[in-house]
Amino acid sequence: MKFTPPVGSYAVIFTSQRSDADAGYGATAERMVELAARQPGYLGVRSSRGEDGLGITVSYWQSLDAIAAWRKDLEHRAAREQGRAQWYRHYELQVVRVERAYAWQSADGALDPASP
Amino acid sequence: MKFTPPVGSYAVIFTSQRSDADAGYGATAERMVELAARQPGYLGVRSSRGEDGLGITVSYWQSLDAIAAWRKDLEHRAAREQGRAQWYRHYELQVVRVERAYAWQSADGALDPASP
Repeated sequence: MKFTPPVGSYAVIFTSQRSDADAGYGATAERMVELAARQPGYLGVRSSRGEDGLGITVSYWQSLDAIAAWRKDLEHRAAREQGRAQWYRHYELQVVRVERAYAWQSADGALDPASP
Repeated sequence: MKFTPPVGSYAVIFTSQRSDADAGYGATAERMVELAARQPGYLGVRSSRGEDGLGITVSYWQSLDAIAAWRKDLEHRAAREQGRAQWYRHYELQVVRVERAYAWQSADGALDPASP
C-alpha cells in the first residue's frame, strides 16, 4: 500500500451506515469493486467498515468524466437502488479534487503481507 | 448523520494500517478527535476501522489555512510522530477540495439512535 493519486485527479468519498439486512450485500459490494476497476479512468479504491456498521469507501478517478461514466453504469445503478432500498440507513457522498497526496510506510510495513 | 460539507471546503483523507502495538493508541485517537473539533474552521469528521486494521478517517475543514493550522498543533504533531513510530504500518493522506456533496437517509434511518 503506497498509493498517491495525482494532484488534479478526483475521488468519491462514500460514507454509509449499514442496515441489518444482508440480502446479497457482500456479493454485490465485491462485484462493484470489480466492475469499477475495469472502468476507464479508474485509479484505485480504499474501503473500511467498522463493527458499528459505519463504512467509508474512497474511490479515485482520473477525471470527473470518468466518475460520471461509472455513475451511469446500469449494474452500478441497480446496486445503488438496492442500497437505498435495503442495505443502508443513511449515507453521505462527496466528489472531491485531489490537491495534495502522500504516503508513508514503516520499515516493517514493507514486509506486510496484507498490503495490496 | 446528514452532513454535507459546503462546495469549496476541504477534507483530509487519512487511510492507515494499524500495527499490533497498542501503546495508548485509543486514548490518543479520541483526544485528537476532541482537539480537532475545537480548531477554527473545523466542520466535522467521519472515521471507520475494520477488523483487518485498515482505517479511513476523513476530516472536513473550511479552508486550507485551517488544515495548516491544525497540522502545526504541537499535541497533534507529537501524536503523528508516535503514530509513525508505533501505531501505523503505513498510511496514505490526501488533501482534497469538495466539488459536490449530498446525503441520503432512509425513512427508518431518521430514528437510528447511532446517528451522531
